[in-house]
Amino acid sequence: MQDPQRLRQRYQSIRALSEHICAPLEIEDYQIQSIVETSPPKWHLAHVTWFFETFVLTAYLDGYRPYHPVFEHLFNSYYETLGNAYPRPKRGLLARPTVPEVYAYRKAIDAAMDTLFDRLQQDPDAQLLALIELGLNHEQQHQELLYMDIKYNFSVNPLRPAYRDDLPDRGDMGATLLEWREQPGGVYEIGHDPDGGAFCYDNESPRHPHYLADFLMAGRLVTNKEYLAFIEDEGYQRSDLWLADGWTHINRYDWRHPMYWEPDGEGGWLEMTLGGLRPWRPDDPVSHVSYFEADAYARWAGRRLPTEAELEVVLEKMPVYGNFAEEGVLHPAPATKDGQWFGDLWRWSATAYHPYPGFRPYAGSAGEYNGKFMSNQMVLRGGCCVTPRDHVRASYRNFFYPHDRWQFSGIQLADSPA
Amino acid sequence: MQDPQRLRQRYQSIRALSEHICAPLEIEDYQIQSIVETSPPKWHLAHVTWFFETFVLTAYLDGYRPYHPVFEHLFNSYYETLGNAYPRPKRGLLARPTVPEVYAYRKAIDAAMDTLFDRLQQDPDAQLLALIELGLNHEQQHQELLYMDIKYNFSVNPLRPAYRDDLPDRGDMGATLLEWREQPGGVYEIGHDPDGGAFCYDNESPRHPHYLADFLMAGRLVTNKEYLAFIEDEGYQRSDLWLADGWTHINRYDWRHPMYWEPDGEGGWLEMTLGGLRPWRPDDPVSHVSYFEADAYARWAGRRLPTEAELEVVLEKMPVYGNFAEEGVLHPAPATKDGQWFGDLWRWSATAYHPYPGFRPYAGSAGEYNGKFMSNQMVLRGGCCVTPRDHVRASYRNFFYPHDRWQFSGIQLADSPA
Amino acid sequence: MQDPQRLRQRYQSIRALSEHICAPLEIEDYQIQSIVETSPPKWHLAHVTWFFETFVLTAYLDGYRPYHPVFEHLFNSYYETLGNAYPRPKRGLLARPTVPEVYAYRKAIDAAMDTLFDRLQQDPDAQLLALIELGLNHEQQHQELLYMDIKYNFSVNPLRPAYRDDLPDRGDMGATLLEWREQPGGVYEIGHDPDGGAFCYDNESPRHPHYLADFLMAGRLVTNKEYLAFIEDEGYQRSDLWLADGWTHINRYDWRHPMYWEPDGEGGWLEMTLGGLRPWRPDDPVSHVSYFEADAYARWAGRRLPTEAELEVVLEKMPVYGNFAEEGVLHPAPATKDGQWFGDLWRWSATAYHPYPGFRPYAGSAGEYNGKFMSNQMVLRGGCCVTPRDHVRASYRNFFYPHDRWQFSGIQLADSPA
Amino acid sequence: MQDPQRLRQRYQSIRALSEHICAPLEIEDYQIQSIVETSPPKWHLAHVTWFFETFVLTAYLDGYRPYHPVFEHLFNSYYETLGNAYPRPKRGLLARPTVPEVYAYRKAIDAAMDTLFDRLQQDPDAQLLALIELGLNHEQQHQELLYMDIKYNFSVNPLRPAYRDDLPDRGDMGATLLEWREQPGGVYEIGHDPDGGAFCYDNESPRHPHYLADFLMAGRLVTNKEYLAFIEDEGYQRSDLWLADGWTHINRYDWRHPMYWEPDGEGGWLEMTLGGLRPWRPDDPVSHVSYFEADAYARWAGRRLPTEAELEVVLEKMPVYGNFAEEGVLHPAPATKDGQWFGDLWRWSATAYHPYPGFRPYAGSAGEYNGKFMSNQMVLRGGCCVTPRDHVRASYRNFFYPHDRWQFSGIQLADSPA
Repeated sequence: MQDPQRLRQRYQSIRALSEHICAPLEIEDYQIQSIVETSPPKWHLAHVTWFFETFVLTAYLDGYRPYHPVFEHLFNSYYETLGNAYPRPKRGLLARPTVPEVYAYRKAIDAAMDTLFDRLQQDPDAQLLALIELGLNHEQQHQELLYMDIKYNFSVNPLRPAYRDDLPDRGDMGATLLEWREQPGGVYEIGHDPDGGAFCYDNESPRHPHYLADFLMAGRLVTNKEYLAFIEDEGYQRSDLWLADGWTHINRYDWRHPMYWEPDGEGGWLEMTLGGLRPWRPDDPVSHVSYFEADAYARWAGRRLPTEAELEVVLEKMPVYGNFAEEGVLHPAPATKDGQWFGDLWRWSATAYHPYPGFRPYAGSAGEYNGKFMSNQMVLRGGCCVTPRDHVRASYRNFFYPHDRWQFSGIQLADSPA
Repeated sequence: MQDPQRLRQRYQSIRALSEHICAPLEIEDYQIQSIVETSPPKWHLAHVTWFFETFVLTAYLDGYRPYHPVFEHLFNSYYETLGNAYPRPKRGLLARPTVPEVYAYRKAIDAAMDTLFDRLQQDPDAQLLALIELGLNHEQQHQELLYMDIKYNFSVNPLRPAYRDDLPDRGDMGATLLEWREQPGGVYEIGHDPDGGAFCYDNESPRHPHYLADFLMAGRLVTNKEYLAFIEDEGYQRSDLWLADGWTHINRYDWRHPMYWEPDGEGGWLEMTLGGLRPWRPDDPVSHVSYFEADAYARWAGRRLPTEAELEVVLEKMPVYGNFAEEGVLHPAPATKDGQWFGDLWRWSATAYHPYPGFRPYAGSAGEYNGKFMSNQMVLRGGCCVTPRDHVRASYRNFFYPHDRWQFSGIQLADSPA
Repeated sequence: MQDPQRLRQRYQSIRALSEHICAPLEIEDYQIQSIVETSPPKWHLAHVTWFFETFVLTAYLDGYRPYHPVFEHLFNSYYETLGNAYPRPKRGLLARPTVPEVYAYRKAIDAAMDTLFDRLQQDPDAQLLALIELGLNHEQQHQELLYMDIKYNFSVNPLRPAYRDDLPDRGDMGATLLEWREQPGGVYEIGHDPDGGAFCYDNESPRHPHYLADFLMAGRLVTNKEYLAFIEDEGYQRSDLWLADGWTHINRYDWRHPMYWEPDGEGGWLEMTLGGLRPWRPDDPVSHVSYFEADAYARWAGRRLPTEAELEVVLEKMPVYGNFAEEGVLHPAPATKDGQWFGDLWRWSATAYHPYPGFRPYAGSAGEYNGKFMSNQMVLRGGCCVTPRDHVRASYRNFFYPHDRWQFSGIQLADSPA
Repeated sequence: MQDPQRLRQRYQSIRALSEHICAPLEIEDYQIQSIVETSPPKWHLAHVTWFFETFVLTAYLDGYRPYHPVFEHLFNSYYETLGNAYPRPKRGLLARPTVPEVYAYRKAIDAAMDTLFDRLQQDPDAQLLALIELGLNHEQQHQELLYMDIKYNFSVNPLRPAYRDDLPDRGDMGATLLEWREQPGGVYEIGHDPDGGAFCYDNESPRHPHYLADFLMAGRLVTNKEYLAFIEDEGYQRSDLWLADGWTHINRYDWRHPMYWEPDGEGGWLEMTLGGLRPWRPDDPVSHVSYFEADAYARWAGRRLPTEAELEVVLEKMPVYGNFAEEGVLHPAPATKDGQWFGDLWRWSATAYHPYPGFRPYAGSAGEYNGKFMSNQMVLRGGCCVTPRDHVRASYRNFFYPHDRWQFSGIQLADSPA
C-alpha cells in the first residue's frame, strides 16, 4: 500500500507540472485542436481533473457534489459506461469554460483532494490509494499528450511559432556507431513483475512465459541521415517496401518524408520542433514516423522491427535512463556511448496491441482505460523525450495506430542471426 | 465625390464599432470557427484590416511597407488573383497572431490610414475615396457576420453562453394582424438609381427595366407561431411541400425545426439568442430558416416567396426604418402597426443571384467582391436586426446558399391576385 | 383532345424506339451505372414502363393488378409521394430482374396499354389521354438519357468500346463564319402558347410578359477550335474567369478540358463519341461542357451567355430543324449556312431554373415531375443530337446542375449592343 | 517435385470447377460488385486466368504473346510491382470484355497451359511446377470468394434471388452439447511442417517454437440460438462488451445482428443463404459475424477467442474432415457428435496477422501474395462450407479486417483453466 503522505506530495508535484507545461502558452494556444486525434491544451487540463473528480471524489468523498453539472459531459474522454461524452472532434469549439475557469476548476478539485488526503492519512484505503495513483499516471500520460499536441498545433500555423524559444539547441553532436546486441533465445517471462510492488497498468499483466528465438537488437535508434538514404533511394516510391495499407495511406496523403521535416528551399531540410523551425540535424534520431514508415525502412535496410517481447527482454536489463522530459530538451538526441535504450523516442514494435494471456481489465468504468483499445493498434516501448521519467518502465506498453505519427516515435531495428 | 473629412470620421466610427461588437468576448471566444461557413471573430477583425492594407495602403500610400510578411496569406479571404489564401476551413486553427497582436495590427493600419486621409484632404482622389467607402461597407458586412458567427459559436457550446446578458428581453408583444399590400404590374426600373449619388455595390447596377405582373406582398414577416403550425401539420414530413434538394438536405441533417429552436423538455420550445437561451416567443418573426424551409412554408401556406424585383419595388417606397443593429435588440421583434419592411430579418426572395443585364464588376481584384458568387445562391432583401442601418437600401442584394441558415433570415410571403 | 388512335400509334412507335436504341447493347452493357447521375439502360427501360403502369394502368384500368409486387419499389425514380424508392446510387447493383425479364415486363405493360387504348377509342377521356402523352414525353426524355448514359459508361471503360461502329464519320467539314443576330428589346411573351394546343410540360407555363433589352445572339455554337484557344490561353488556370463555385469544382476534380477530350499522346486530342474514340474535329461544336466552363469561356471571349428568355425569343421564330436523334449522327456537327439554332447541343442559358410567375404543377404525384427541381439548376434550350426531334420546341426548358456535363451541352454566345 | 501429369489433371479439374460454380449465374449476375470488398464473378474468372498468363506463361513459355494488351491492366488485382492496376472499386463498371469474351480468354490460356504441360512432361522444372501449384491454390481461394461475393450480391437485391434453389435444406437438426477440450501448455512447434512436402503458402512458414499455457477449446462453433441470447441480453447496446473500434463501427453502421439475419416481421428471423431467404435455424452455427462481434460475444459469454497458435495445436491433431464446398450444402451445419474442428465456418482467432519469426516472402512479384497484408487484419483458421477441402490444412492462415463479415466466419470459444 502506498504511503498517503508520499502520494499527496506526488499528487501536488504532478498536478503542478501539468500547469508548468502550459505556462509558455498564450490563452489562444489553449484553444486549438488541429486534428481530431489531438485535444486543446485546455481540454487536457480539465479532463485529467475530471478523472479525479469522477473516479475518486464522487466515488469516495462523502457528500462531494459535482463542481459543475455539464463538466461531466464536456470532459469525459471516452468512458462510454459513464454516459454520453461530448464529441471528440469538437473539443476545439469549446470557448467556454475559459482558461481561467478551467484553472479554477483544477484548484477546486485539488482542494477537495486535499480534504480526501487528510482523511486517507487517518484511515488509509489501499484501493483508493491505488485509484489515485492511477489518476496520477493518467495525468502523466496527458503531460506527454500536451507536448505532442502543442507541437502539432504550432506546426500547422504558417507562422511556425516556437512553444519555447529557450530550449537548448545542441548543434550537431555526431552519431554513435551502430552496434548490435545479441540476445539468446528461450522461454522468457514477459509482463510486469508483481513482486516489485511498483505501479503498472492492467495491460502489462499478468507476467507470463513467452518463447523467443535468438535475436539481435540495434544499440541505438535510426538517425535522420540513415533515414534520408532511404528517401533518396526512392523509398517512398517503391511499393515492394510497403505494407499494402501503408502504401495506400502514404499515397492518399502524399507522404514523402517524416511528419516534421520541411524542405528548406535549397535542397536541404528544416525540422519543426517545440523550439520552432530549426536546422535539420543528420545525427538526431529520425522522429515522428508512422509504423508503416518504420516497417518500410526496416525492410529496405534488410532488417526488421523488434517484437514487443524482444524489446522488453532487452529493456528489462537496463536502467531507466535517457533523454526524458526532465532533461528539458524536448527533442530526441543522438545516442551516447552507452547506447540508446530508454527515452528519446518510443520504439515501434512489430507486435499488435493485444491482451496478454489471462489479462483482466480494471473493475468498473476504469476497465475502459486500456483493454478496449486492443485492436488495430501497434505496441511501442521505451518512452521518449517528452515522457516523465518515472512514468516509464521496461514492461510499459504504449500503443498507436499504424498510420499515427504525431507522437514522438522512432525506429530501433532488430534482426535474427544468420 | 465624397468629402475626405467626413469619410475619415466615418472610417473612425465604423472601425471603432467593430471593436465595440467584440468587447463582450473573452479571448477564447475570438478563436472559434464552429463550422466552415463561419470565421473566428479574431479573423474577421484582421481580415477587414487586411482589406484596407491591401487595396488602399499598399496600392495608394507611397512607400507603404506591409505590416507582416505572412498576414497577406493569412487574412486574404478569397481573392484568388492576389495569390493563394490560407484555407478557409482552418481559420480556427490560427492561435497566432494572438488577439492583442491583431488589435495592434488594427491600430497600425488605422495610423497609416490617418496619414492617407491627411494627404486626401490636401489632394482628394475620387477613385481612392470610393475604394475606402467600399472598404467601410466591407467592414460593415463583417460586423453583421461577427454577430452571426458569434451566435452560432455560442449555440454549439453545451453551456449555451450569452454573448451579452444585458440585452432587452421584451417579453411577448403580440403579433400584428397580417395585411396584404397590393402592387400593380407593369415595367419597373430595378437596381440602384445612380442619380442619388449614394454608394452601392457593383451587383446593384445597372438600373434596368423589368416587367412585373400585379402582386400582393404580406405586410409583415411570418411569426414563430405561424411557423409552428406548419411543423405541427407535419410540414417537415411531407415531401410534396419541398424542393427535391431541400428534401434531401433536411433528411440528411435531420432538420425538424428552425436552427435555434430547442425543445424545452416539456413539449414547448426555447430559442438560442445573442442573449443566451430564452423562452420561445410565439409572435417573434421566425428566424434562421433556410431557403428550402421558407419555400416549403410558403407552399404549405398556399402562397409563394416574392421575387427580388417585387421586394425592391415595395421597399423602394418605404423609409429605411426598422429593427437594425443600432436598436441594440439583436433579435427580431414583432411587427409594428406600420408593417415590417426593413430590418428584423433578411427576406428570402425566390430569385437566384445572377448579374443584372449589363452588369460590370469592379476593376481589378476588387472585381472578385460580388460577381464570382453569382451561381447557386438566392437573393435576400431588407436587412436585419444585426445589420448597421446605414448599410442597407432598397436595392441591396444579399445572397446565401439555399441551405444556409446561420444568417438572420426570415419569410415575407407574396402572392398573385386570383 | 388527342385522337386515341393516333396516340396509340405514337405510343407504339415511341416504345419501339426505346428498344431500338438498346439493340446494339450487350447484356452486360444494360447493367452499368458508372456514376450516381446515370442509370443502367435496363433500369431506364423498366422505369419508363413503371411510369405507364403506375400513373396510367393502376389509376385508370379497372381491375388492373400490378405486374410484380417489388417493381414499384425498384423502378420508381423519385416520386416521394408514392413511397420509398430504391436508392438511386445502387441501381447498378440490380442483376435481377434480368434483361429478358425487363423486356417481358415491357411487353406485358404494352399489352395492358393496348386494352386501355381499345376502351379509349370507345370512350375517350381527355385527362387520361393527356397523361399518356405525358408518359410518352417522359419516355422520350429517357431515350436521350439512354444515349447520354451509354456514352458515359463506355467512356470509363479502358477498352473504349463503340456503342455503334457504323455511325457516319463526316470527316472535318469546316466551320461557318460566326454571324451575330440582332434582336430589339421590349416586352415579350415568354412560355408555351396554349392556343396552339400542342403538348408542353407544366414548367413551360403560363405564358407571361417579360422585358428584354436589345441583344445580340451568335448564329452558331462555339467550336472545338475556338474553345481550344481558351484552353491554350490558360483559361483553366485563370481564377478571374470563373465563378467561385466553378473554380472550386474544376480544381477539386482537376478539369482541364471538356469531358470527352483525351490527349492523343502527340500533343493533339482525341474525342470519345458514341462511335468510339475518334480524331478531334476542330470545327465540331464544343460539347459536354459544364455551365461553369460555358460561363468562363464567355467571359474570356468578352461576351456572355444568353438568358433563357433571349434564347426563347430567338428560337420561337425558327423552324424546329437541325441535327436531332433522327439524323442518326449522334454527335454534334458544324453549323450550316442557315445558322445553328436547334439541335446539335443544348445551349446553356444564364438563367436559373425557377417557376414562371403563376406556375402550377401537375395535380397529384405527377406534380413531382418538374417543379421540385427548381433550385440550384440552370436552364438549357434548343435540343441536341440525341433528342427526338418532336420532343423539342422553343419553349422547352431543360435543366442541369452547373457542374453537370455528361449531357450533350454546348455554348451559344450572346451579347449586348455597345 | 510435383508430377507434371498429376498437376495437369489437377489444373483441369480446378479450372473446370470455377466455371461450374458460375454455371447457375445469369449474364447479369456476372457483372455485379455490390461493395468495394467484393468483385464481379466475371472479374474473378478473368483475374485467376491473368495470374497464370502473367506469372506462368509470359514468364516461362517461350514466344508467348499476351492475349490482349489491356487485360494486364484490367485483371491485375494488386500487384503494384507489375504496374498500375485498374482501380478495384470500379471493377463492376467493366461491361466489356463480355462474359463470353472472358470465357474465350480462359479457353485460350488453358490451351497455352496445355502446351506448357506438354513441355513440362518432357522437361520437368520444379520451380515452374511450384508456381503452377500456387496458381491453382490462388484459383481455389477465388472459388471461395465467388461464393462469398455472389451471396452478398444477391442479398442486397430486394428480390432476394437464390443462387441455387436445389440446395439441401436440412431442416433443423438439433445442437450438440457444448464440450470443452483440454490442452496442456508448453512449447509447441507452430507453422507448416516442411517434412511432409505438401504445399503451403509462404505465410505459414517457418515452423517455429511457441509457448502456450494450458487452455480449453470449445468442441463446436457457437450457434444462432446462443448468439440470439447475447442479442436479447442487449449485447449490441452494452459498450462495456466491445472493443472501442468495434463500438464505433457497429453504431456507425447500425449493426444489431449478424449480416444475413433479417426480421421476419413477426418477431422472429429469416436468414439469407446461397439458397435464398430461409427460415432461421436455431442450431446452425452463427455465421457472418465480424471479429468485433465475435470478441464481444466471447466477453459476454465469460470466455475468450482462441489465439491462432491454440487453434493450430488443436487442429493439427484432427483429420481435415467437415462441411466443405464438396458437400454441396454451402451453408454451415450443426456439429456432429465428433465435434466441429474443420469446415463450416472460419474461426476468428484473437491474433493479428503478422509474419512468423524468420518469415520470407516468395521471390519477385509473387512476394506480394501474402506478406504485404500483414497489418490491421486478424487470422482465421479451419476453413468453411464454401472452401475446397483440399485447400485447407491445420497451418492455413486466412485473414480479414476486424470489421469484415461477408466471409463465412464464426466463433469457436476458448478459455483458460481456473
